[in-house]
Amino acid sequence: MTQNLSLLQSEEDNKPYPGPRGGGTAMRVIVPLQGVVQGRGGLFLGSVIPCALFYFLQLYFKKSHRTPPNSPPPSSSPDANSSSPCSPSTSSDKLTEVAILPRSLSRILLSPRGSSSVPYLSSRANSIVKAENSPYILRLQKVSEDSYHLTDNPDGVIQLGLAENKLSLDLVQDWLVENASGAILGGQEDCRELSISGITAYQPHDGLTELKVAVAGFMSQVLENPVLFNPSQMVLTTGTTPALEILSFCLADSGNAFLVPTPHSPGFDRDIKWRTGLEMVPVPCRSTDNFSLNITVLDQALKQAKKRGQKVRGMIITNPSNPVGNLLNRETLYNLLDFAREKNLHIISNEIFAGSTYGNEEFVSMAEILETQDADRDRVHIVYGLSKDLSVPGFRVGVIYSYNENVLAASRKLARFCSISAPTQRFLTSMLLDTRFVEKFNEVNRSRLRRMHDMFVAGLKQLGIECSRSSGGFYCWADMSKLIRSYSEKGELELWDRLLNVSKINVTPGSCCHCIEPGWFRFCFTALTENDIPVVMERIRRISEATKSPS
Amino acid sequence: MTQNLSLLQSEEDNKPYPGPRGGGTAMRVIVPLQGVVQGRGGLFLGSVIPCALFYFLQLYFKKSHRTPPNSPPPSSSPDANSSSPCSPSTSSDKLTEVAILPRSLSRILLSPRGSSSVPYLSSRANSIVKAENSPYILRLQKVSEDSYHLTDNPDGVIQLGLAENKLSLDLVQDWLVENASGAILGGQEDCRELSISGITAYQPHDGLTELKVAVAGFMSQVLENPVLFNPSQMVLTTGTTPALEILSFCLADSGNAFLVPTPHSPGFDRDIKWRTGLEMVPVPCRSTDNFSLNITVLDQALKQAKKRGQKVRGMIITNPSNPVGNLLNRETLYNLLDFAREKNLHIISNEIFAGSTYGNEEFVSMAEILETQDADRDRVHIVYGLSKDLSVPGFRVGVIYSYNENVLAASRKLARFCSISAPTQRFLTSMLLDTRFVEKFNEVNRSRLRRMHDMFVAGLKQLGIECSRSSGGFYCWADMSKLIRSYSEKGELELWDRLLNVSKINVTPGSCCHCIEPGWFRFCFTALTENDIPVVMERIRRISEATKSPS
Repeated sequence: MTQNLSLLQSEEDNKPYPGPRGGGTAMRVIVPLQGVVQGRGGLFLGSVIPCALFYFLQLYFKKSHRTPPNSPPPSSSPDANSSSPCSPSTSSDKLTEVAILPRSLSRILLSPRGSSSVPYLSSRANSIVKAENSPYILRLQKVSEDSYHLTDNPDGVIQLGLAENKLSLDLVQDWLVENASGAILGGQEDCRELSISGITAYQPHDGLTELKVAVAGFMSQVLENPVLFNPSQMVLTTGTTPALEILSFCLADSGNAFLVPTPHSPGFDRDIKWRTGLEMVPVPCRSTDNFSLNITVLDQALKQAKKRGQKVRGMIITNPSNPVGNLLNRETLYNLLDFAREKNLHIISNEIFAGSTYGNEEFVSMAEILETQDADRDRVHIVYGLSKDLSVPGFRVGVIYSYNENVLAASRKLARFCSISAPTQRFLTSMLLDTRFVEKFNEVNRSRLRRMHDMFVAGLKQLGIECSRSSGGFYCWADMSKLIRSYSEKGELELWDRLLNVSKINVTPGSCCHCIEPGWFRFCFTALTENDIPVVMERIRRISEATKSPS
Repeated sequence: MTQNLSLLQSEEDNKPYPGPRGGGTAMRVIVPLQGVVQGRGGLFLGSVIPCALFYFLQLYFKKSHRTPPNSPPPSSSPDANSSSPCSPSTSSDKLTEVAILPRSLSRILLSPRGSSSVPYLSSRANSIVKAENSPYILRLQKVSEDSYHLTDNPDGVIQLGLAENKLSLDLVQDWLVENASGAILGGQEDCRELSISGITAYQPHDGLTELKVAVAGFMSQVLENPVLFNPSQMVLTTGTTPALEILSFCLADSGNAFLVPTPHSPGFDRDIKWRTGLEMVPVPCRSTDNFSLNITVLDQALKQAKKRGQKVRGMIITNPSNPVGNLLNRETLYNLLDFAREKNLHIISNEIFAGSTYGNEEFVSMAEILETQDADRDRVHIVYGLSKDLSVPGFRVGVIYSYNENVLAASRKLARFCSISAPTQRFLTSMLLDTRFVEKFNEVNRSRLRRMHDMFVAGLKQLGIECSRSSGGFYCWADMSKLIRSYSEKGELELWDRLLNVSKINVTPGSCCHCIEPGWFRFCFTALTENDIPVVMERIRRISEATKSPS
């Protein structure tokens, strides 16, 4: 499919791109060759063989030219072939979308004044438009239109597909009611002129220093093992989505790749790949290891990627993991650093759930490891945000925390495309500097998280559904393979449909997270109340019994 | 220089990219050919000729492969050669930066375990890092460290280089003091649970519908000729910077180009080009036409671009213009639409100063033209924002207003990288729906703008400095060519230095706006008070007299 796509594009792209373009080159050689063929006898025979070779060469070129200069290498990435319904733009999507595209372009070529030509849409925009049709996205929209409510809409769909935490919003609300106005404009009347300028005027793109100081303090405070964070190593963005994208832009060029352990967050397909032209090389983690990352598998994935000709620039680890919720232990972190050094790779350590742990395992930040290790700091970049650990995704605050001066310099510049609104920065500064509030929030939130996790996992266990061990995050990772009718992605998606249509619950299927074992599902339980849990379990029981009865 | 760059990169890039790569391919053919050469007599002669051709072919390939597949066509863009101090990354910058790059990479090749290799930084990040050294940016930083204040720092630098309006902030402040808290969380106690969720939870990436409705109303209200805007044609972003970038991503692919009349906003070099891989084709406007856009010149620029092999996908017009402040009249807008239709181009109409007009000329929005014209709407995209017309750049609110469903669909998706904080969206919704506030703000702001403009331009006139006619924006565009020592960009930049170091004022030189006539400067007067104007004029007089005295 990628080949067809490239074919269509290359027709259009053929002329204006300088560089190796076989068609024209071969023609320039064929004309003198035809002269040679005019000879006789041995001269003729001697010519005919290389000429035939030439024609084959031509054919070879035509075939290999179907890769346009800006598209990634064809099918070299294993996930390029994925036809998962959650991948925002699969190859098959691209085929249809680009098949439409050159028609309008060929029109322009036919009639240069093209009075009613269809305006050009970039091929990158075309693939993003197609992503609109991903069932994962459509489903999120559908759910929001028919949300469950205990009294108002008891037959509505229960949302368990979004990693959102509403368990401790009451605390955030109390703080805002009391402090929001003063925190935005400053409390004292005589400072107001300064304050208004402090929120309305242009601010540094990469965030106010005051907020960086406050975020650094918050990060230290919510970690189980406190680490000192340096505000000057920080770039603030409108959420972790642009933070990941900026790092992708900085650490790799179009066509390069990152190693990404699977299952991983469904958002990566969009954040890492859409505009950067990067590829992701999956590093499969398995249920037999409780989905832990294994350096041997990482090494294998890297070797295979290199064999395919991919240039791997780094890896993206998520700790605590999403969707599994397990943690990377100290030893693994040291091994990852060694591996990164040996292979000259970057490490993006996505630690957005660092303060949302509840298990008995110890969470270790990559920053803690680097406190005692000077070497190779400049290949480590931590992604953080307030969406998870402060439960405020609507505030759009993400953090790039890097040890690499060049990456920081470029990221500060690129933050112009994703600067946080100054009023939000002002009141968040006050909120995060209120250490008593942060302490209370952190304590209450963790204990509520643990309670919900334990109740939810116990509920599933009663239904015979086991979850993998987890210590962080807003979800559990459940093995529903007993409930699927065929042990395949198709079977998994069929169960996903039944869960929505019969049980009226929306969850995230493993295939959306590129899990290689079918039948695993992510259940986000932190947007529920305790009273909702029996309702959810009852709804799952329906499916569970319906599956058992026909057998 | 671009060639050197490509050469260095291609050494590294050669192997892993599948596709048309002469080296390997040619070798596969040469081995059987060597067999053919083993023959005798005519057979030998007949082979030798095509073989020789083959070797030349090989050489040709090696040469042409030095353009890596992801880099734009070398030096095809006229502004790629610009050495302006304001261009964020010039070709010469790139040379140095990439010359450093492959050294670390060649190390990896030499020692595959490369224990202390320098981590890779993408070539796009490298050029952005270099942009840090642009004098325009450095100067803005310098000024912020030594800002003028009437009493606290009377010898500080007066900032006239930033298009920021502080004339009517008192009105914004009054509104916020009275309404901010209630507007964020909702006034009534019993609705608070809903409100807290409405600001902390994930929201649609492209903005709340309520805010879109409010912005559409605001846009209609501030226009002199009211136009109805449809909220469903809107995508909200964190400022016009990402709005322009998203449109650039959607309307053109890497290596494509936009026509941009000059002088233009200094920000375009970053917004349009940094991450999209696009080029800008300057369309020079001249002082003899009061820097108005002329369709003949536009057509010439397009033809020349096509000759250079550039694919032009659209044009970016700014109306009211920045830095000149003149307006595009109705006839020009119709002509531009005709031109766009004829050449199958998009029009990005940047109308961020639409409500900041003060002259006697009539401002006409592209939206007004399209109200009476159904055809070709889908090639028009308006960029708007609240940074200028509401004087709140710190709030980071930009608008894409498009008539093209595909562009809207892609932009909505891409807004995930630049979503506005929900609390800011909530209180802005209240503020903009307060039509009495908007009416008062608009009226007071325009009259203050006009007064400041008239005073400032009169002050310059007294010093013998003429400004081009303007009717909108926060600046005037002044002809200081009499004060420059040599009629060249060098002379202009030398005056720019003297203005900073001797006069202690920071302005924007024409070369930062790609003006082709030296000696023009943009003076932003809207961050001043009326009392500051005599101080500024006195400071300019110093330069003016110093220039006259030696001659």
